[in-house]
Amino acid sequence: MSGYFDHIDPIKYEGPDSENPLAFKYYNPDQILLGKRMEDHLRVAACYWHTFCWDGFDVFGGGTFNRPWHGPVNDQAAAEGKLNAAFEFFDRLGQPFFCFHDTDVMAAAETPKEHVENFAAIVDVIEAKMATSRTKLLWGTANMFSHPRYMAGASTNPNPDVVAFSALQVKHAMEATHRLGGAGYVLWGGREGYDTLLNTNVGQEMEQLGRFVSMVVEHKHKIGFKGDIWIEPKPHEPTKHQYDRDVATVYGFLKTYGLENEVGVNIEPNHATLAGHSFEHEVEMANALGVFGSIDFNRGDPQNGWDTDQFPFDLRENTLALYYILKGGGFKNGGSNFDAKVRRQSSDLEDLFYGHIGGMDLLARALTNAVAMIESDQLQAFKDQRYAGWSSGIGRKMLNGEASLDDMAAQCADQNVSPTPVSGRQEHLENIVTLAVK
Amino acid sequence: MSGYFDHIDPIKYEGPDSENPLAFKYYNPDQILLGKRMEDHLRVAACYWHTFCWDGFDVFGGGTFNRPWHGPVNDQAAAEGKLNAAFEFFDRLGQPFFCFHDTDVMAAAETPKEHVENFAAIVDVIEAKMATSRTKLLWGTANMFSHPRYMAGASTNPNPDVVAFSALQVKHAMEATHRLGGAGYVLWGGREGYDTLLNTNVGQEMEQLGRFVSMVVEHKHKIGFKGDIWIEPKPHEPTKHQYDRDVATVYGFLKTYGLENEVGVNIEPNHATLAGHSFEHEVEMANALGVFGSIDFNRGDPQNGWDTDQFPFDLRENTLALYYILKGGGFKNGGSNFDAKVRRQSSDLEDLFYGHIGGMDLLARALTNAVAMIESDQLQAFKDQRYAGWSSGIGRKMLNGEASLDDMAAQCADQNVSPTPVSGRQEHLENIVTLAVK
Amino acid sequence: MSGYFDHIDPIKYEGPDSENPLAFKYYNPDQILLGKRMEDHLRVAACYWHTFCWDGFDVFGGGTFNRPWHGPVNDQAAAEGKLNAAFEFFDRLGQPFFCFHDTDVMAAAETPKEHVENFAAIVDVIEAKMATSRTKLLWGTANMFSHPRYMAGASTNPNPDVVAFSALQVKHAMEATHRLGGAGYVLWGGREGYDTLLNTNVGQEMEQLGRFVSMVVEHKHKIGFKGDIWIEPKPHEPTKHQYDRDVATVYGFLKTYGLENEVGVNIEPNHATLAGHSFEHEVEMANALGVFGSIDFNRGDPQNGWDTDQFPFDLRENTLALYYILKGGGFKNGGSNFDAKVRRQSSDLEDLFYGHIGGMDLLARALTNAVAMIESDQLQAFKDQRYAGWSSGIGRKMLNGEASLDDMAAQCADQNVSPTPVSGRQEHLENIVTLAVK
Amino acid sequence: MSGYFDHIDPIKYEGPDSENPLAFKYYNPDQILLGKRMEDHLRVAACYWHTFCWDGFDVFGGGTFNRPWHGPVNDQAAAEGKLNAAFEFFDRLGQPFFCFHDTDVMAAAETPKEHVENFAAIVDVIEAKMATSRTKLLWGTANMFSHPRYMAGASTNPNPDVVAFSALQVKHAMEATHRLGGAGYVLWGGREGYDTLLNTNVGQEMEQLGRFVSMVVEHKHKIGFKGDIWIEPKPHEPTKHQYDRDVATVYGFLKTYGLENEVGVNIEPNHATLAGHSFEHEVEMANALGVFGSIDFNRGDPQNGWDTDQFPFDLRENTLALYYILKGGGFKNGGSNFDAKVRRQSSDLEDLFYGHIGGMDLLARALTNAVAMIESDQLQAFKDQRYAGWSSGIGRKMLNGEASLDDMAAQCADQNVSPTPVSGRQEHLENIVTLAVK
Repeated sequence: MSGYFDHIDPIKYEGPDSENPLAFKYYNPDQILLGKRMEDHLRVAACYWHTFCWDGFDVFGGGTFNRPWHGPVNDQAAAEGKLNAAFEFFDRLGQPFFCFHDTDVMAAAETPKEHVENFAAIVDVIEAKMATSRTKLLWGTANMFSHPRYMAGASTNPNPDVVAFSALQVKHAMEATHRLGGAGYVLWGGREGYDTLLNTNVGQEMEQLGRFVSMVVEHKHKIGFKGDIWIEPKPHEPTKHQYDRDVATVYGFLKTYGLENEVGVNIEPNHATLAGHSFEHEVEMANALGVFGSIDFNRGDPQNGWDTDQFPFDLRENTLALYYILKGGGFKNGGSNFDAKVRRQSSDLEDLFYGHIGGMDLLARALTNAVAMIESDQLQAFKDQRYAGWSSGIGRKMLNGEASLDDMAAQCADQNVSPTPVSGRQEHLENIVTLAVK
Repeated sequence: MSGYFDHIDPIKYEGPDSENPLAFKYYNPDQILLGKRMEDHLRVAACYWHTFCWDGFDVFGGGTFNRPWHGPVNDQAAAEGKLNAAFEFFDRLGQPFFCFHDTDVMAAAETPKEHVENFAAIVDVIEAKMATSRTKLLWGTANMFSHPRYMAGASTNPNPDVVAFSALQVKHAMEATHRLGGAGYVLWGGREGYDTLLNTNVGQEMEQLGRFVSMVVEHKHKIGFKGDIWIEPKPHEPTKHQYDRDVATVYGFLKTYGLENEVGVNIEPNHATLAGHSFEHEVEMANALGVFGSIDFNRGDPQNGWDTDQFPFDLRENTLALYYILKGGGFKNGGSNFDAKVRRQSSDLEDLFYGHIGGMDLLARALTNAVAMIESDQLQAFKDQRYAGWSSGIGRKMLNGEASLDDMAAQCADQNVSPTPVSGRQEHLENIVTLAVK
Repeated sequence: MSGYFDHIDPIKYEGPDSENPLAFKYYNPDQILLGKRMEDHLRVAACYWHTFCWDGFDVFGGGTFNRPWHGPVNDQAAAEGKLNAAFEFFDRLGQPFFCFHDTDVMAAAETPKEHVENFAAIVDVIEAKMATSRTKLLWGTANMFSHPRYMAGASTNPNPDVVAFSALQVKHAMEATHRLGGAGYVLWGGREGYDTLLNTNVGQEMEQLGRFVSMVVEHKHKIGFKGDIWIEPKPHEPTKHQYDRDVATVYGFLKTYGLENEVGVNIEPNHATLAGHSFEHEVEMANALGVFGSIDFNRGDPQNGWDTDQFPFDLRENTLALYYILKGGGFKNGGSNFDAKVRRQSSDLEDLFYGHIGGMDLLARALTNAVAMIESDQLQAFKDQRYAGWSSGIGRKMLNGEASLDDMAAQCADQNVSPTPVSGRQEHLENIVTLAVK
Repeated sequence: MSGYFDHIDPIKYEGPDSENPLAFKYYNPDQILLGKRMEDHLRVAACYWHTFCWDGFDVFGGGTFNRPWHGPVNDQAAAEGKLNAAFEFFDRLGQPFFCFHDTDVMAAAETPKEHVENFAAIVDVIEAKMATSRTKLLWGTANMFSHPRYMAGASTNPNPDVVAFSALQVKHAMEATHRLGGAGYVLWGGREGYDTLLNTNVGQEMEQLGRFVSMVVEHKHKIGFKGDIWIEPKPHEPTKHQYDRDVATVYGFLKTYGLENEVGVNIEPNHATLAGHSFEHEVEMANALGVFGSIDFNRGDPQNGWDTDQFPFDLRENTLALYYILKGGGFKNGGSNFDAKVRRQSSDLEDLFYGHIGGMDLLARALTNAVAMIESDQLQAFKDQRYAGWSSGIGRKMLNGEASLDDMAAQCADQNVSPTPVSGRQEHLENIVTLAVK
């Protein structure tokens, strides 16, 4: 161990009255809610990329962080130093899970051979490290967007050789995820889209993507990986347009390739808002379509138009998200990954803790609120009564496929009334939520 | 005839050098392009609602137009006066097509019985009018969003009785469309969405929508209507969220209910941009998914966030849209409806002509540009070469389903090279388009 | 009295544990915070337009509300019925204030003479009504955007006769505000902008606006009105561009015409977000520029691009806004007007109460949170230390105008060090706010 | 000379029928328009940063360009190699101007001493290079946003020592600009704003900025620099909020510090659209406020929410911008800088030429269109007639300050008519522009 965080005591739950900024006030892993430990509800994960790899650069300026564990990118010893930092950090926070891309953890590689070797070398070390840690792998993934070879896409690249390199990365990343006991495997298509329609064969590229995800699913079964596969929707950035735009679009894609029972979604709030949706919309849409998987918790900036990946702080938004997640059955293999980064000006190691503590406390409050909402489920009661007409009569017949347009029209003509509109009670329902947000 | 437009001479093609603002400079119906008359390529339609029904009101102010044909809304004579105005207008412009909602043309009704009677009464008059006019019906539709009974949706209403009223309207609107020789029937779900998730059962409502559209398709076949059925995507407004968000979402919906070969899309540029897409993206996505149908030409305001339905004026945007439309085979049953309205300050009857003349001249230029682009198809040539790798080798195998992830990874490992990225030539291709925009 | 709300008991404070949806859980007028009654801090007002005039129409559909007090728009008796409804409503809620436009309260008029007479007739009745009510006038204003004569602007209209009509309306509206004891007078320039640059002389119109506001200020002093004058910024809608875009733009305008000490701003959160700002940004900008006046509390929909004027429900946003308002000295003549409307589907009279109760409870909680933040002002302490360098040395000299660029550069060269960046501690500060949001 | 572009022949004007993608089809420097050479109208410049410094990285991926002139950043020889590349490029294109930041051209420095020395070293070389080149300096600037020391701002930094470093950079950059014969000096405040209000004293920072710009203006006069000083507005990115948001905000700032006659604006279309304005709005607003200076031509992506800095291709937008620029008197010291970069996938040296050729041809066409619009100025004629009422009567009196609100109201009451609205003819005017876009 390298002692990068020796000056920070392990973060403990001290209760809401604590004035210690380096303590949890609400995140209490062992608290029981709906018969389950808070930790087991939330399944919190830290992400490797923002927390241990990013140096604080942005498009207009260089790195500000000077992380003590950063060394040459293509060096195994530096990769191991970073791994030590990560597990020390997980340990301080008591994180039950982490997530990573292949290239986050390994010494940088150029050729396929180097890639396989360097990745294998670090996976061995990760496995050893995990043997003595309580932190498990929530999910793994392959980074197929940072290397210049992927500038025109990975599985949707016009060059089949690039797709083959993608296949190599996914194969090894998924096998490592399996070996390390990961609960899921994620595909985010950062460059699976286009910068300009003018040079793009959209139909061909979507077909490539469909075939690629099919091969990934087939490989999962071949190796016996029992975890889930999740696609992470995003509308754009870095591309102008990404094929996996949002939950509904991903569902249409899965349906087209017969994958809707094999693949779910990993929803990110900041991606939801970039796509023009609320976070809770995407969760509820995934519930409705039966593809809910996991969450990359963060937030965007409603005044800015790019992916800011900030730590969540909106209690109402996250209360509602967790309400819908619980209504859908809660997390199974999925969990609460913080795909969030401290701001570029938050240049101290302490800031990493402030970010994660704030996020975990927020989720703890949101979960507690959501549980209370479910225990006296006024929203559900209102909806049950609002849609009651569908359990019988022409409504039932229509849903059962037993009524034609003529039948419906005839019934309307027979009754010969214009139905009276009924209040939707939006403000009343919003007040119920507001009162539940504590 | 009522002579509303007697002060306006019929609009003629006078060529690019004409200085007459009430003449076409580019729209020349008989000009042959790719072996087909311009009129037959474009199939231009005027819309009834914006042009003959709207009085110039907006959310912050009352009507400014004082149309001479506006009378009491529930009066058959007033409805006939409006019809006279419409056909005089079509005649002046030489419009080959028009489009309407049931409630645009009829005396307003409250009960189902009144609806059926009032609509039937005006359809008789329309039929007679069309017998002596060259203007045909491009498509018909039912307005299921303006009446207060639809405030919580039409086919997705929580009350099955409202759905039955929708069925009544669609049945009669579609049958009238069939009788009047319409080439298509459109479904725009203006209130098929939600204002708040809190009172909405999203899964139930999408199921209602799926069953409803299925019944509509069944009814089409029952009555022998040979035209197309098109859904018009829009992301929101008036609702917070509309289920038919964009082309890809509609496709996923159609696929879910097995309707992808029965129903296409009617694309509106302003809806495309509200959904975060370029107009040409939506066209090309519809081509790729095989659901392209028709276009509601207009434009939004890139600085404002609502549906402004302005007449199109962007030559580049419409050149590209027509290029992709032609590449997809051009319009079949569909056409170029102007779902566009003059501004509220454009309060004279002349302004209606300026709007349509400008739009038709623009489409004529865009079409001419698009044809020239196709005649020496540099974009296609570039793409053919860019994706050439997929016609053989591992690429071909992958698309044919003959390669596994392991096969791909093995080939990559064997070759052991990181593919060299190749320029996407975006600026070069953009220059080609810019030079084609004339 | 007409008894429109006889079925609703007066709304009382029942404390946080009440389960009565028609009671206040947090809004407790007499609660003392920072030595002042909650009611006197917040100075809550109801708005006349959304609550008593709007019938539930939107751009895509007709009115859904069927308010029992709605009669012919140009009828004095109907205007008085609406007034009775308003004061019954104020009385039920215990509203200390209300706000109105001239045309909200009066029988509709066409000519100047009618306008003056009809307005005078209702102002007499309002005065009598107020004599027996506890509800006072927060501010008055003139509606110079709904009548078609204003379609091209009021004071910025190309036609001076329209500007003269505006002057007539403002004169009488301001004099009525004065007579009714209003604390302020508001100018919102709903059509003071352009729909297209092509027909607009921007420089001329801004000069008209500058001269008009100057005349308004002169008139205020002439009649001895001691209240404040506030401009309400909005970026667009109904216009494409409005001259009073946001607080900073209004300040530049005021500075140009020497009005920055005479006129302040009435900030609306939904206008702030449409302009690309957070609500608290606009408050803090007004504080920094010395023009803070009053608030039109509401919220927009972050996924939609138009003015939705919803009741506020975001506890964090409003806690921060009230924190900055209190830091700037709190409300003086200004107050908390709800420029908010229930949704079109919220068609019952009860819904008006749910909206206002929810809003008032929210402000009560936000105020309480803000006061707690101020009592142990960790944000201020952090800022004091962060900017400490400016109280002496080269910083002090620079701010005092005693240092030149050469002096600064010379000092930098002499020290010859690159200053070490210091963490901005954003996540830590955000956690402080999150913990204060209760 | 290093011969980086030896494989590219000098770019020549070959006329509209040329099929050579590496030739100008419209940009013909010697063509006379309104009595002036095209080159002298447009004053085209290439920018150093995007074209010679950027390696193709983005937030999600590494550099793709492999420029042959890129060497170690802190190396004088590499800086000179880059300079050779730049001037070879200017020479090939016949660029009359270029623009640079201090840090673009120099070997990277850490300390003030190094900064002064390294910058001086390269300025000597630039001066020598320019002596044998036809390419002049349009403007210079200092990069005060990329180095980590500026993460919390330059002149608005909480630490006065950082402000002193900014002063050092500006002093030397402005003096070099003067020495190299630059026509202007630009200030873009990339980090002059905030990431979070929570740690920011907005009033203090704006005061710092006001004093800093004042010192810059004083320094200009001290050294006898006769060029212009321009602030470049941008709303945000990299910051959440930038103080110099748009033209109107910058004007308010200048007015506050009495700088409105000393400082103008450098307008960038992509910044305009990020701020919610059209490009032509910002030009016309600058004309109206008397602060128009120069243009950084580029375009954003209307579907994405960040600064994409793409080469312009919209003929209508740029025709209108040049129309308003010419109406305001045309460029004086300012010019047409391409603050534009080829896409990350455009990885060949040829792509740099395609970008600039496309941009220059576009400006040539836009200028030609704008000149034609001015030669028969139908827009101006329409506006003259629309505002004619202001040259006499009550309108004239009001603008002259000779009418009070009472006077205006009295005239309105005396006439006792509601003015009849007049059509704004938007579609007609838009058609005029569309026909002019060729």
